[in-house]
Amino acid sequence: MTTRGNNYTLTDIGSLKNLLNHNFKGVKGKYFIGNELGLSGSEVSLNCLPAEQAAPFVHAHKKNEELYIFISGNGKFFVDGEEFPVQEGSLIRVAPSAERAWTAGDKDLYFICIQAQEDSLTQATSEDGIRLETKTSWM
Amino acid sequence: MTTRGNNYTLTDIGSLKNLLNHNFKGVKGKYFIGNELGLSGSEVSLNCLPAEQAAPFVHAHKKNEELYIFISGNGKFFVDGEEFPVQEGSLIRVAPSAERAWTAGDKDLYFICIQAQEDSLTQATSEDGIRLETKTSWM
Repeated sequence: MTTRGNNYTLTDIGSLKNLLNHNFKGVKGKYFIGNELGLSGSEVSLNCLPAEQAAPFVHAHKKNEELYIFISGNGKFFVDGEEFPVQEGSLIRVAPSAERAWTAGDKDLYFICIQAQEDSLTQATSEDGIRLETKTSWM
Repeated sequence: MTTRGNNYTLTDIGSLKNLLNHNFKGVKGKYFIGNELGLSGSEVSLNCLPAEQAAPFVHAHKKNEELYIFISGNGKFFVDGEEFPVQEGSLIRVAPSAERAWTAGDKDLYFICIQAQEDSLTQATSEDGIRLETKTSWM
């Protein structure tokens, strides 16, 4: 169920294993969430690539930087002819033109991929944030 | 160790429990990765908020949309006076002006927060991607 407020959207997919029920253009375990949540600054996919399976082709991007955050499982990541092992805690930024692909190892590979337009961020964190006096029920 | 190529940056924090060794302005368990990876389209924090602890104040943003992806544990999320339970698989988009805060429940709360400038994404996924003929070692 998705809840939509004026300033927010909230949904819940439950256990991340449920990602295996999603597919994108025939790729099992891939769920793009931008449309459901109404994202306008990034597109984000949540992924569970089953063990021993691989991304179907190498790809690059036109405008978007990508960030891959690996949550659990194991596998390999290819970028511009180099290959690296990936597992829980591996973090990879790739520029738009980087040639990239990945494969799962002997365990299902869980990761999050974030697309955002290269050089689009002008400020962040304490520069962009505003501390408020509002209180929650637990404050 | 961080590896920097022409088109990519790769680092590895190991077990996500290691997040507890990071802190940001006195907040234990918060790691902003943009500087280490050279992100230019988003700023991303990896978070482990210890059980029974809470974000120190309510905040909003000037330009940036935020997306919260909850990975494990439990807690509550406040937005504009409403409060929702969060756990593995909870996904929340908040517009810049949304007033937000969160607290962990009786388990450590693991989540990822993505900041990107609102309305900065012009295209994504198959519109932005380029399928290549390059092959990896496993293709």
